[in-house]
This record gives sequence, C-alpha cells and structure tokens, in this order.
Amino acid sequence: MQPAVIAIHGGAGTITRAAMDATREREYIEALQHVLQAGQRILAEGGSALDAVTEAVRLLEECPLFNAGKGAVLTHAGTYELDAAVMDGATLEAGAVACVTRLRNPVLAARAVLDHSEHVLFAGAGAEAFAQAQGLELVAPEYYFTQARHDQWQRALGNAGMALLDHDAAALAAQGQVGPADPIDPDSKFGTVGAVACDSRGNLAAATSTGGVTNKQVGRVGDTPVIGAGCYADDVAAVSATGTGEMFIRTVAAYDVAAQMRYAGLPLEEAARRVVTEKLPAINGRGGLIAVDRAGNVTLPFNTEGMYRGFARVGEAVNVSIYG
Amino acid sequence: MQPAVIAIHGGAGTITRAAMDATREREYIEALQHVLQAGQRILAEGGSALDAVTEAVRLLEECPLFNAGKGAVLTHAGTYELDAAVMDGATLEAGAVACVTRLRNPVLAARAVLDHSEHVLFAGAGAEAFAQAQGLELVAPEYYFTQARHDQWQRALGNAGMALLDHDAAALAAQGQVGPADPIDPDSKFGTVGAVACDSRGNLAAATSTGGVTNKQVGRVGDTPVIGAGCYADDVAAVSATGTGEMFIRTVAAYDVAAQMRYAGLPLEEAARRVVTEKLPAINGRGGLIAVDRAGNVTLPFNTEGMYRGFARVGEAVNVSIYG
Repeated sequence: MQPAVIAIHGGAGTITRAAMDATREREYIEALQHVLQAGQRILAEGGSALDAVTEAVRLLEECPLFNAGKGAVLTHAGTYELDAAVMDGATLEAGAVACVTRLRNPVLAARAVLDHSEHVLFAGAGAEAFAQAQGLELVAPEYYFTQARHDQWQRALGNAGMALLDHDAAALAAQGQVGPADPIDPDSKFGTVGAVACDSRGNLAAATSTGGVTNKQVGRVGDTPVIGAGCYADDVAAVSATGTGEMFIRTVAAYDVAAQMRYAGLPLEEAARRVVTEKLPAINGRGGLIAVDRAGNVTLPFNTEGMYRGFARVGEAVNVSIYG
Repeated sequence: MQPAVIAIHGGAGTITRAAMDATREREYIEALQHVLQAGQRILAEGGSALDAVTEAVRLLEECPLFNAGKGAVLTHAGTYELDAAVMDGATLEAGAVACVTRLRNPVLAARAVLDHSEHVLFAGAGAEAFAQAQGLELVAPEYYFTQARHDQWQRALGNAGMALLDHDAAALAAQGQVGPADPIDPDSKFGTVGAVACDSRGNLAAATSTGGVTNKQVGRVGDTPVIGAGCYADDVAAVSATGTGEMFIRTVAAYDVAAQMRYAGLPLEEAARRVVTEKLPAINGRGGLIAVDRAGNVTLPFNTEGMYRGFARVGEAVNVSIYG
C-alpha cells in the first residue's frame, strides 16, 4: 500500500445557528480542497511529509478564512500575536515560535528554527529577529486584518471583555450579534490550522499555526507552539490539534496519542479517540485533532459540533468535511 | 507508609576538573539541605505537594548559587530572561511563564497563573503585566546579577559567542578559564532548579525554574515552561527536569515518565531511567530529572557526571548528593 497521505484542519467549534450560507460554505470547502491538493502534489512527487505539512499550513495562513497568518484574531489590546510549530517525526527535530507580531508566515519561521537553529522555541521579538536573519518576510500588523475578525473582537469586547472561548453561540444570536454565516460559528470556534502527513517512505510530520483566541490577554500562549500539546510527530504518529489550548497543554494531548500507541499498543484511531472523547472532556477540553500513522491510517476526531477538516491520499480524490 | 516526600535538583553537568573546593561544596550541600528542610516542614504540617514545590523552588530562586531568579545566567545580549512552571497533579492545573525579565520569583508568577488565570502560559511583557496585577514583586535587572554568572557570560562571549551548552570543561581549563571551583563546572552545567513532591494525601506536584543557558539567543525558550517537557504532574508521577532543554522538549521528557507508567505499567524508577539513559541520549540529550510517584517512591537519574540533588521524607533525615 502507498501510505502517502496528508490531513488538515482549520479549527473546530459550534455549528452556526444562523441560516446556512451556501456560498460561504463553498468558500471553506474549496479552500480546504485547494490546500489538500497542494500537499497531495508534494507527496506525489516524492516530497517529504515535513515539506508537505509546512506548505499546507503556509497556505492556510495565507487564506483569510482561517485564524492563522492573514485572518488571525485580535488580542484584548487589538493587536495580533501568532504562534506556530512544526515537527519532523523522522528525526524528532522541531521548531516553534510564540507571540510573533510581524511575520507573514509563522510556520515558515518555525520551519527555519527546525532547519537552522540549535534551539526549538523562540518567543516574541527574539523569534522575529531570528526569522528576519533567515530572510523571512516581515509585515505590518495591518497585513493580518480582516473585517470579520475585527467585528468578532468588537463583539468579544462587548461581552464583558471575556475571551471568546466558551460563549454560547445561541446567546450571541439572541442579541443579534452573530456575524456572517460561516458554517462553524466564528465566535465559538477554536481557530487553529494544522496539517499532518505520512510520505511515501513512511516518515511523518506535523505543523500547527494560530492567531490564538479572540480577545486573549497579551502574552497568552496556547497549545500550538508547545511540542507535545498542539503539535507532535515521531515514528509512530503525527498529530495537530485545535481547541481550548490550555486543556491540550495540560493533557499533553498530541504526544498522548503517540504514547498510547507506543506503550499501550492502541491503534491510531482508538488512541486519538480516547484523547478527544475522554481525556480532554474530563477537564472540560473542547476541540479536535488530526493524526496519521506510518501505515497511512488517518483519523480526525473532535468533540465539538464541527471541525473544518480533510485528507487526501496520493492518487485518490480529496475528502473534505465540516460537520459531525 | 507515609508517602510524603519532596525531592529537588539544582542543575546537572560535568564534575569540575579544578581542585575541589571543600568550602564551595559545603555551600551547595547546605543550600540544598536548607531548601529540602523547608519543603519537608510544609509536608509535615499537612501542606499540599503544590505548596511544598512552589516554596522549594522559590528558595532555590532566592539562592545565588543556582541558575534561577537571583544568580540567573545572561543571554548573548547581556540580559536576563527567566522561565518557570508549576503543575498540580491532583487537578492537572498548570501555570507557566517564559522570557520574563523583571520578576523576582518566576515560580510565584507561574503559581499565580495556575491559581488565578484561565490560561496556562504567558510570555514576555504579558507575563509580567499579569504578575504585576497579581501583586508580585518586580525587580530591576541588577537584582539577578552575580559576579560568577557575569564572568561565565564573558567567557562564553570569548568562545566564539556560542551558548555554553556542550563545552568541554577540560578545554576551558587548559585556557585557564575555569571559574571558582564549584563541584559541578558552571561552564558546562545545565542550570535549572526544580522540585517534585508527594503529600500525605498522595497528591503530586512539580515545579521548575531557570535562567536558561549562558549566552543564549534572546527569546530562546527551553523545556522549563513547557508542560510535559521540563515540568509535569498527574496522579501517577510528578517530574522536574534539567539539561539540554531542546532535547527534553523533543522527547516530551517529563510526561514520558508518567506515560510509560500509565500505559506500559513500568515502575517509576524504570520509566525515568529509560528517559534519561535511552531516549535522551538517542538525540544527544544530556541532563537529568527528579520524579516521585503517589506511593512516595523517588528517583533522581542523570546522564551527566553530577547533579545537585536531594530528597527528604517527612520524619526522616535529609539526603543530599552532587556526584554520580
């Protein structure tokens, strides 16, 4: 069997109560298909899992529909702070950046850390200085701006200034505050993007990127750049997560999938299911993850109503889904 | 059996080649004993493991002999950037701060995040703003200064500006560059402090704090504030690590001890041994860790020549060691 496969996600959350907007839904579907096809092409040409996930996440960062890179959410202070990570399962090499404010593609900075630094994680201005020295593109904060995220931030500020983590979409809808009819409610969505892949040699890789949580406190770092929490890859499994980041950190969610496979002998799907439907809910963790193993098995579990997700095997049609 | 026990570490590394200075050695021994006695007292009075490890690490931060708080090492830019984390195994609650430059006790900021924030990890100025709002003490950078760390930084700058991670102490000694005769060579030491404890109710906790690596690039974050890497606690084990932080992140070292116990049924000592003598060396990881389980078992393995370490059971004499 040809194991080569790539899977992606674009965030999980509550299916919007507003009338479904078929045009908006098609935009999401097409964006996910486009990204999967790009990753599929890299794998079909013999490219590495590491290159496929890096490129897939870069494309998701470029797409304003998703909360990473362009289209990122705003902090309480009205600024942007982005996090990203990438890990190569073949070598256990990893790179990550946290709280960056001027990088067009945080995932490329994470990849540069993996490729060119003796370190794994850089935060803040130090991360930007490293990325700049590597020739990566800097942008002004306005680059990240989208009207939808700005409106979402304004709604969050209006709701007692709380981070839009656990808001009930129905309550917001009752106040007439629901935004455009995205298939998954942007006000209750855990917006992170990610990719996992298995290449034709059976090597695995994972990448994750996010703008974090709307209206988050400045300096808050979620699970995305935390290796083992929001991103992990070894020779057993590659995992990328999206959800209430704090709970993914506390359960070491991404690594826990691989640990259950390695130490308890669980298959990929069962290991991932236990994390998403047992361990995370036990501490009120919400969200989902995508995972692949070296045989090319794929699983995309979530404990929310929906998750933007899909996978593509080399030589087969692309699969994309939004709802449960 | 009374399980209540606390263990601490103050960094691992190479035994110095310079003539041993008995006075200096006694300073380290007495500092470790003092900290252990304080933790032991908290546990004896029925205090929680969480309170015992927080206080032990606070005292290690206050002691200029160790690379955390006062006595922290300098970055390449001659600044101080500190990281700390704490985790409560009873609840899986965690708090951490990274790249803080103005907090007297980073571990108290990590504890405040655990106690008072919906978030787990804050970086940089955002972490300091949170700590300040919680009433924690801010200090000027001069507070952290010690002549020994300054001299060590100067030696690192003179050695091609590389981080003093893997330097051969013998080579430095040949250049007449070895500093005061610390039992463990400060120029090749992985200086982190940490504590783990099991309280009389069988609850576990871990805390870790560091100034990082001498001459590190600004913004570099090691394993210390990464839950699962340098600090982890659940109802199976509590772990605090010290060493080449990047390799502890890549192996998810601290959580891996608990995962092997939970999923493979290994006893504490064997799970910790595999991490320190097999998984870390496989990617050139050097250092050690301290770990306890809920039965009060303690293990303190390291793959370097020495590690400042000790443990104390309630009602028993304090044990302190430096060499292998």
